[in-house]
Amino acid sequence: MKVLVVGANGQIGKHLVSMIQASETLEARAMIRKQEQATFFEDLGAETVVVDLEDDTAAIAKAVEGVDTVVFTAGSGPHTGKDKTILVDLDGAIKTIKATIIADVKRFIMISSFDTTREAIQAASPSFAPYVVAKQYADEKLRNADLDYTIIHPGLLTNDKGIRKIEAATKVERGEIPREDVASVILACLKNEATIGKEFQVVSGEKRVKDAIDSL
Amino acid sequence: MKVLVVGANGQIGKHLVSMIQASETLEARAMIRKQEQATFFEDLGAETVVVDLEDDTAAIAKAVEGVDTVVFTAGSGPHTGKDKTILVDLDGAIKTIKATIIADVKRFIMISSFDTTREAIQAASPSFAPYVVAKQYADEKLRNADLDYTIIHPGLLTNDKGIRKIEAATKVERGEIPREDVASVILACLKNEATIGKEFQVVSGEKRVKDAIDSL
Repeated sequence: MKVLVVGANGQIGKHLVSMIQASETLEARAMIRKQEQATFFEDLGAETVVVDLEDDTAAIAKAVEGVDTVVFTAGSGPHTGKDKTILVDLDGAIKTIKATIIADVKRFIMISSFDTTREAIQAASPSFAPYVVAKQYADEKLRNADLDYTIIHPGLLTNDKGIRKIEAATKVERGEIPREDVASVILACLKNEATIGKEFQVVSGEKRVKDAIDSL
Repeated sequence: MKVLVVGANGQIGKHLVSMIQASETLEARAMIRKQEQATFFEDLGAETVVVDLEDDTAAIAKAVEGVDTVVFTAGSGPHTGKDKTILVDLDGAIKTIKATIIADVKRFIMISSFDTTREAIQAASPSFAPYVVAKQYADEKLRNADLDYTIIHPGLLTNDKGIRKIEAATKVERGEIPREDVASVILACLKNEATIGKEFQVVSGEKRVKDAIDSL
């Protein structure tokens, strides 16, 4: 199964491409913004494709062509300029959803924000709210698209080493999770078709990743 | 006919409320952010309601209740912080659309940006693109909502005195238009039900406002 990793050069993306390349049944195509980011992925034996999420939908669709699954891990993050929140987190995500449909690919895994409900937007700080709004519209678009989606809502991301133990459910207590463990969660979703149509929050916890995802 | 003017305290909004109050068949309810903005509208004999577009949909729905038409003239504009572009131009607009549906009002007139097509987003400068993206998603939401909509795409807005002569069509040459004339265009749409389901660009031109709108 070939997986396009959108936002491959991010930290979750790098962990994910490494894990995919280490598996026997999966292979990655890393979507990156600049040619000079390619070496890391080439060293892992992964295919690369240079496309910017600010390019048009047709350019993104070309990157999607021929894969079986799209994973959207790109994120301007809550602390970049709010222009990028609109252009990447909102518009980049929605163009990628459209590009996936154009390229006739069905499976789409979205890395969202922990809580993208209306209530969360109203409760968010003025500096964080725009990011939540962007992610909310992207999630909504994906839910309404005719795709085999999974939406992952991770807790506060850290750069700690992964512990591969999580708690995952529709609603969990707010908490942290290492980016490496988010990559493990994505990998478990890639290997489990029962996650299609599901949407869940995930933080560090007590259960092995595979068990937690399989029992969703 | 009672008209809720969202963004009443903006320049288009102020012109519009004045014109509505001067007409025999229409009356305005001015939606404003702060109580101290009320005097201008009270002096015109218009009703006021204090609601912020960053409030939740239920609060906006209360402001909509009992009117016949909603006009969305609010805009953070292209030059405010991009956080407001998301929270007002995108999310504020979409919440107002939802609030209109909740309040069981059918007619909705949107003041959009001159060109909100995908091509315009790709061609826009990096500082202007986020604004166009926000307006594009708001327009799209309105087109897909079960409302009697009109979407007005004015050219470059100026503070010049209105000349009440315009050119309006699906596509017109890029040009300027005084905010006062945009208000006249909205008024003409309020008085002409044939504008329901229509979407057009408008700049200063040769035709009287009413004639141009009636011949759309």
